[in-house]
Order: sequence, then C-alpha cells, then structure tokens
Amino acid sequence: MIETLSLVDQYCHGVLRTELGLGTFEAHLARGEGQPAAGTTFFDTQTGFAVRRWCPPLLGLEPHCPPARYLARRRELGVLESGRRLLRGSGITTYLVDTGLPGDLTGPGEMASAGGADAHEIVRLELLAEQVADTSGTVESFLANLAESVHAAAANAVAFTSVAGARHGLALAPEPPGPGEVRGAAGRWLTGRRVGGTLSDPVLLRHLLWIAVASGRPLQLHAGLGEGGLRIDRTDPALLTDFARATAGLGTDLVLLHGYPYHRHAAHLTGAFPHVYADLGTALVRTGARASAVLSEILELAPFGKLLFSSGAHGLPELHVVGARLFRESLARVLGTWVAEDAWSLADAQRVAGLIAAGNARRVYGLE
Amino acid sequence: MIETLSLVDQYCHGVLRTELGLGTFEAHLARGEGQPAAGTTFFDTQTGFAVRRWCPPLLGLEPHCPPARYLARRRELGVLESGRRLLRGSGITTYLVDTGLPGDLTGPGEMASAGGADAHEIVRLELLAEQVADTSGTVESFLANLAESVHAAAANAVAFTSVAGARHGLALAPEPPGPGEVRGAAGRWLTGRRVGGTLSDPVLLRHLLWIAVASGRPLQLHAGLGEGGLRIDRTDPALLTDFARATAGLGTDLVLLHGYPYHRHAAHLTGAFPHVYADLGTALVRTGARASAVLSEILELAPFGKLLFSSGAHGLPELHVVGARLFRESLARVLGTWVAEDAWSLADAQRVAGLIAAGNARRVYGLE
Amino acid sequence: MIETLSLVDQYCHGVLRTELGLGTFEAHLARGEGQPAAGTTFFDTQTGFAVRRWCPPLLGLEPHCPPARYLARRRELGVLESGRRLLRGSGITTYLVDTGLPGDLTGPGEMASAGGADAHEIVRLELLAEQVADTSGTVESFLANLAESVHAAAANAVAFTSVAGARHGLALAPEPPGPGEVRGAAGRWLTGRRVGGTLSDPVLLRHLLWIAVASGRPLQLHAGLGEGGLRIDRTDPALLTDFARATAGLGTDLVLLHGYPYHRHAAHLTGAFPHVYADLGTALVRTGARASAVLSEILELAPFGKLLFSSGAHGLPELHVVGARLFRESLARVLGTWVAEDAWSLADAQRVAGLIAAGNARRVYGLE
Repeated sequence: MIETLSLVDQYCHGVLRTELGLGTFEAHLARGEGQPAAGTTFFDTQTGFAVRRWCPPLLGLEPHCPPARYLARRRELGVLESGRRLLRGSGITTYLVDTGLPGDLTGPGEMASAGGADAHEIVRLELLAEQVADTSGTVESFLANLAESVHAAAANAVAFTSVAGARHGLALAPEPPGPGEVRGAAGRWLTGRRVGGTLSDPVLLRHLLWIAVASGRPLQLHAGLGEGGLRIDRTDPALLTDFARATAGLGTDLVLLHGYPYHRHAAHLTGAFPHVYADLGTALVRTGARASAVLSEILELAPFGKLLFSSGAHGLPELHVVGARLFRESLARVLGTWVAEDAWSLADAQRVAGLIAAGNARRVYGLE
Repeated sequence: MIETLSLVDQYCHGVLRTELGLGTFEAHLARGEGQPAAGTTFFDTQTGFAVRRWCPPLLGLEPHCPPARYLARRRELGVLESGRRLLRGSGITTYLVDTGLPGDLTGPGEMASAGGADAHEIVRLELLAEQVADTSGTVESFLANLAESVHAAAANAVAFTSVAGARHGLALAPEPPGPGEVRGAAGRWLTGRRVGGTLSDPVLLRHLLWIAVASGRPLQLHAGLGEGGLRIDRTDPALLTDFARATAGLGTDLVLLHGYPYHRHAAHLTGAFPHVYADLGTALVRTGARASAVLSEILELAPFGKLLFSSGAHGLPELHVVGARLFRESLARVLGTWVAEDAWSLADAQRVAGLIAAGNARRVYGLE
Repeated sequence: MIETLSLVDQYCHGVLRTELGLGTFEAHLARGEGQPAAGTTFFDTQTGFAVRRWCPPLLGLEPHCPPARYLARRRELGVLESGRRLLRGSGITTYLVDTGLPGDLTGPGEMASAGGADAHEIVRLELLAEQVADTSGTVESFLANLAESVHAAAANAVAFTSVAGARHGLALAPEPPGPGEVRGAAGRWLTGRRVGGTLSDPVLLRHLLWIAVASGRPLQLHAGLGEGGLRIDRTDPALLTDFARATAGLGTDLVLLHGYPYHRHAAHLTGAFPHVYADLGTALVRTGARASAVLSEILELAPFGKLLFSSGAHGLPELHVVGARLFRESLARVLGTWVAEDAWSLADAQRVAGLIAAGNARRVYGLE
C-alpha cells in the first residue's frame, strides 16, 4: 500500500572486494572492540538475524538458514556475483558513498555498476586533512593545501562528512577558531605526528568543519552510535545545538547521521533549525526487528521534509540489503498503521514515504 | 470503554485574537528558529497532521483536508466563531492559563467564555520580575516590590510557572541564594537592563523560585521541550533532583512540565518525591500519531496519582483541541490495551483515567 | 510457544521474615523518599498493579483483588507459607542473592529452601568494606583486612556487586588508584567515621572495584534506577565506558544492573566490550504493563549472549514473582511477535529465550 519506488542511500560505504570466511563476515556484523565473548557470536544480534532473514533468498537459499550454509553459498557464487545479486536486490537506486574508511572497499563507480544504480562520493574531512598532512612540509603549506583540497573536493563530491564526534566528542566550541589558534594547533599536530597519524585535535576538527561549511556542500556529522568503545554520551547531537545556531543562514545544510540512541534529540534539532536534517543510518541495521520502533521515535519531532534514508552499511553488501529492506518495511508498517488508525491520510503517508526514501535527499544534495 | 468525562488542562496559553493567514498559522505549528526550510512546510509534521485530522470536522470539513481549505473555512467563520467551536469541541472543562507570553492572546476570562469552561490564571515568574524591574528605581525597591508582587499574585493565581530552564538551564544551585548574593545580582541586572529586558541571571532565577515556593502555590517548572534552539540537555528534569530534595516537606508542590524527551526522568522524580508531579504538556501535541507511545513511557515509573493532563497549547485553539483529543484517545488506547491483556482491571483503568484527566489536578490546585 | 523452563534470577535480595501490615507492604512497592503524597498510594503504580495481577491467584484469590483483601489473606496464611507459595510459584530455579542490604531478610539458604531452588550469595563490596572498617584499628590493618576479606568472599560468593553509582555516581576515574592515594583516602575516611558509617569516597570505591576485578569473580555494577532521590543522570552506564576499556582482557566479567532509563546505553556497552553483560533488574518490576516495551529496547543493541534475567526483588516475595512473570510473559510476547512477523525464526527465538532466562547466567557465573 505504501511503497517507495526509489531509494537514495544518503550515507554508506563500499563493500569488501575479497572472499570472506565466517569469522571476517561475523566481525562486520558488530562494532565491538575485539572478538565476541567466549560462548557467544555476533550472529546472535539483531543485525545477524536480519541478515539471515533478508539475504539468503537473494542468493537462492531459504530465510534464516544457518550462517555456515549462507557463507558457503556466498563463496560458491563468488564475491562479485553475490555482491551484484545483493546490491541489485536491495532496491537502492542511488548510493552516496563515504570513501574515507580504510580497507579494500569498492568505490562509488563500482557500487554503481555492481548495484545497477547511481553513485556519488562523500568526502571524509578528517581523512582529507590526514592525507594533506602526509604531504605538507610546513604549517603554512598544510593549511593552504587543506583549503585547496576541500575546495577541490567540493567540486566533485556530493557532501562532506565529519567524525569529529568519534575523534573528540561533539562538545566543540561552536564558532570558527581564529587563524592564530589554527596555526598553533596545526604546528603542534604536525610536529608530533607520524605519516598516517589520525586527527583528533579539537581546534583542527572545528577548522575543518568551518571550511566545509564555507564550501556550501551539505555537511554530514556523525552523532550517536559509531565506533564500538566510544563514550556515547559525548556524541549526543544536542551538543551540536550551538554549532547549528552558528551556521544558520549561511546556506549550508547539516545532516546528523545515526543519532541513536539520541535520535529524538536529532529529530528535535531538525525541527528547530531550517538547515538541519537527520538520518537513522545504521540504527535500523543495528536494531533489526526493532527498526520500526526506532523509526517511529525519530518520526515524533522531525518535520517530514527533514529526514533522509541511509543504510550506513560498511563492508558487506548484506548490510545495504538489510538497511534498505528494514527501512522499506518499517516505513510501510509505521505509516500504514497510522493510516489504519485514521491519524494520517493515505495520500499524506504515500507522499511522506517518498520524501524520506528519496525526495528529501534529492533536494538536499541536488540530485536529479 | 475508558472515558474521561472532564478534562482539566493544567497548562496552556490563550489563543490569538486576530484572523490568521496560512503563514502565521503554519508558524504556530512548530517551535523552530525561523522559517521552514525551502521545499518544506511545518504542516508536514505530526502536529500539522494532527490538526488536519481533528479540527476540520469541528468546522464542518472532512478530516485531513488541505491546509488552504481549512484556513479559508476558518476565515469564513471568523476567528471568534471558529475559536468558539474549536474550544467547545475540545472537551476541556477547565483551563489553567499561563498569561506570561507576549502577543495578542486571550486571557483566562475569554478562554472560559469562549470554551464554555472554567479558567484560572498561572503567573509566570520571570515576566513578573521583568514587569517589576520596569517600574522599580532601586535594588531595594525592586526586591521589595518583587516580594509583594509574588505575594499578591498568589492570592489570585492558581499556580506559578518558571522558565528558568529555557533562560539559563536547569543546572541551578538547589538552595536559596543569600540576601547579599541576590542584591548583587539584582544590582548588576538592573544596571545593565533596558525596559523590557529579559531575566536570565541564575541567582535571580533561583530567588524567584524560592519566593514562589514560600507562597505555597504549586510551582510549575518547564523542562525538556521548549523554545526551538534550546540546548535540550540543559533542561533535563534530572537536573532538578537536588532542588526537589531541598523543597521536600515545605508544603509546596512542584509540577514538571513537558519533560519530553526526558519524560522518563520526570516520571522517576514523581515517584521519588511526594511533592513532585508531571505532565506531558505539548509532548502529545508535538508527537501526534505517536502520542500513545509517548504517554505509555511516562506511565512506566510515575505513580498514577502524580500525572496531570495538559495541552501546552499556545496561540491556536486547534492546539487545545489536538492536545485534548490526542490525550483522550491515547489514554483510552493505552489503558484499554492493558485491560485487554489483563494486566490491569477495567475498574482500575477507569479510575486512573479520571485521576490523570482531572482528579489529580483538582487535588493539586484545590479546584472544586 | 516460546517457553523458558528454568530461570536464573541473577540479582535479587531476600524477603522479610516478619508479618507485614498494609503500610509496610506498600512502602516496598516503591523507592521513593518518604511517604506517598497525600491522596495517593504506591499501590497506584505499575508495580502495585502487577503485584495485584500476578500474586493473588498464588494465594487462592482472584487477580486484581483489593490490597486490603490480599494483605488479609497473606496474614491468614502467615509469612512463611505465603512466601513459600509465592517463591515456588515464581518459576525461578536459581537465586543469586545480594546479602548486602539491611533489614530482617532471608539469606540464600532460606531462599533456596523456601523456593525449592538453588541459591548463591552475591557479596556487596561497600558493605564488606564498612564491616572491615568497623573492626580495623589502623589504615594498614584496614587495607590488609579488606584485601583478605575480598579474597575470602571470592571463594564462596558467586559474584561481587558495587553500588558506587548510588554512593558517588559512576563518573569515576577508570584506572586503579595508586597505593598512596588509597592510604590517604582510607586514613581520612577512618578518622571521620563512626561505627556503621557508609563508604562514599571515590578513591576507596575505585579501590574496591579493582580488588574485586582482581578476584576474577563477575562484578555487578548498579546503574540507572536505584535509590529514590538519586541524581539519575550520574548513574548512566555510559559513564562506565572507560572503566570497561580499562578492565578489558583481564578475565573478569562486568554485569551492568538495571540500567533503565539508560538501558539502551547499557546494551551498547554489552555489544562494544566482550566482557560486559547487562540485566534489566527491577526495570521490569517497576514498569509492569510496559515490561515488554522496555525489554524490547534492551534487545535492540545487546548481543543475545550478553543479557541476563533478574528480578532485582527486595523484601517481598511478591516482587520475585512479578519479576519472573513479567520477564517470561514479555519475552514470550516480544520474541513471539518477531517470529510471527518472520523477522526471527522460531528455533532462534526459543534458543535466545533459553540464553537470557538461564543459559547466559550459567555460563557467566559458572553454575552447573
């Protein structure tokens, strides 16, 4: 009844190019620090169960089949063919791909051809800065090259993304740091740094955010769920309130990623500021059978023109499938229930489904 | 099956006296900073959909009719007649009206006559202090006039309300400030202040809370959802724990307003302290089709004698209607489900519904 | 369909040995500071309604009967016989009993014989330290006796538990305090202390945690809901993230108790760290008709091998009954719904139910 004909996955990563054994596959189902506990497995999670529900039929197996059987079939088909079948079975028509994670991952072009879809690149600010630092000799050249790199990236990328929340926490001073402050922080960072060293200095993180804001491209900010052992309370999107106020009216949209378990706070911000948007990202993939409940919660305060679908998938095409299927099914169920209760009209529900699935993302990212 | 024959709206505002265009009407559906984003509308919110569900039939239109049609009909009837029909259709039998917001809003008397109901005034402490400051020449006269004004207000008002959370945040020292501290803060504020200047000094906000506590009238404290661009984590009612302990046993009740998205924290406080109560205020209006889910969450920890209905409505009589209808329908659905599951007896459910709808408010505010 | 044949209650207390009047019974239904408000009763809570639902039939009365009638029947049977009937009717097969609360409570042996079940002791660290302090003359003897007491307790107890969150809050430095720091803190505490004085010094609380970690026994940490007038935000389990990281790989498991209303944060930690587990403790008992909703929320992020059943019951055998019944019914309903929606397979649901009800606890605590 409530269908979403096209799906713009506004935040995901590529998939691994190599054949996977059971252990590597399992490791991608969770975001823990280290192995599962003795006597437990990451297949025994909502994500694991959701993968076993949705993916086996796309490879010709029955739903809920045992992990070993699924992995055997996956290897039988080969990583390319199984990836092709999975991505094409996801229903996703456009992928926005954050290329800033390490590993042997497919890029936007490969995602497009494997998935029979469009794809665009999202540039991760911290990685950009680290790459610039690897090749810059002085503070002055670093800062000049950084500005130029962001400017160049903005010409091709569909958006920027920042993991400042995972690197430092979102309790950052909202205003742009002064030039002297930035030079000082850059000097300290470059001096102490070896090639490949990660960026977590709060002044430089803020500097990056502000040069991204100046580019006019939508800026995606990781909040809530992220790396495993993160102090999750330091990624509460409410901490971005003053940054949202400081960037209001500048013409650049902010997109809060994930948000869970603070998704109600993210929804509040989308209602409070015209330029703030939110997705649920991996929240649906991580919560599986609970996806419709979680989706319902973000639909409380967020204006319906301010929410965007994404899978947040990383490494396994199974996660793109699960993200898309859970989203579609949850949205249909949640809005369908409201229509059945006469709280919403059917026409409104269909229109809102189309906005969240694709329309809002098309408008925000200027996709045709 | 579970019906609430009378409804005491224990916290709301008056309605606008002027005819409204589509844009002004829309602006009252949200609490954002500024306009809706380009390509979006505040009608595409749970509040907007709830208004379109419940209000058109009261003006002779079909539910879910388009906003423009609804506004045309509203203007055709005129603001007075449409307001009359809406308020009388809400089912609210008593309004407690916070008169402390600016704008051309009806007062308690007009609410009573338009709605065919009783009405009483709630006095907003910060506005009272600002009015006293406008007419007091010295620190001494300001403090003396303030004490006298609160005392005089207590004779007529049914309660006091404080927006200290929105002005400063709820992380206030719990004890009353000392006399010297208050004089110092008053002096600084009065010196720097122009007529109409708002009060946000934490010492004076605490002073106001404590002279209100001394009056014995119930004191309503805004928490959670409030003004748009608020740092919502600074309004977590858990921050009031030490103030609750400091005021325990003094004979004055505290009522936590709104609370969402921290309504579970508010519920916890109502169970922890005999003199602490809570409502959901605008939370139901803001979450629309999700109102029964939100109501369920506050019903987890709160003793049933400690919850109060309110609409939190402001400006549009449509919001009083939506607040009342969502509350009634949600309460009937939530408690009805528990009866159907045999978790609650029907007699208990009916009794509790009456308490939350009106009985608790009658007891707390001494309404007959 | 989804049944749990045995139930390990991995955290509870004993029951009162004395006959109870209505007032004393009522007081055990809540964790407020002081009496219920005038005009209200703690029977009008989810816990009160759940007790009236589940317990009267075990004593031969109809469900939902009035409190006075229930208490009369309870006294008619006598505290021993009614306790026996209730505990045996709970379905709990093993009790892990925290013996660290004051009052005339049954110990593990009595719980076992009254309930026809197994029982083991959990040792409360802070009480142990207070008892050692009562009998130690010097700082040196206190610290030596403390180490020996923890060592001795570890030989018999099934686990340690800490209420550092209620005593100080969970924002504790994650690393073990240095020996000089510990001696200084012990000296200050012992000097200022009278016999029976409670321990709330953060350095000594951390010292206790670390000597417990060194014992290898599972360490249960109270988080979220606890004593009535607690600043609940100071017990957010997210505050334990750095302690979890500091203790990873040492071979000692951490079990987060209760968690609510931060149970989603607790669930996140169980997924992030192999040695971290969680229960819902009293959360189900306190939320009654909402227990399945609360259970659903912790099932979002937690790997299914990391959750443990407990009742958190204290004083009244009715609370053991309610904890067990609500858990069983909620688990069957939640997992049954997911099976009906084809999100989970029936075999998976049955297996997971067995893990959470008993299997995980057997593995973590080494019960046979």
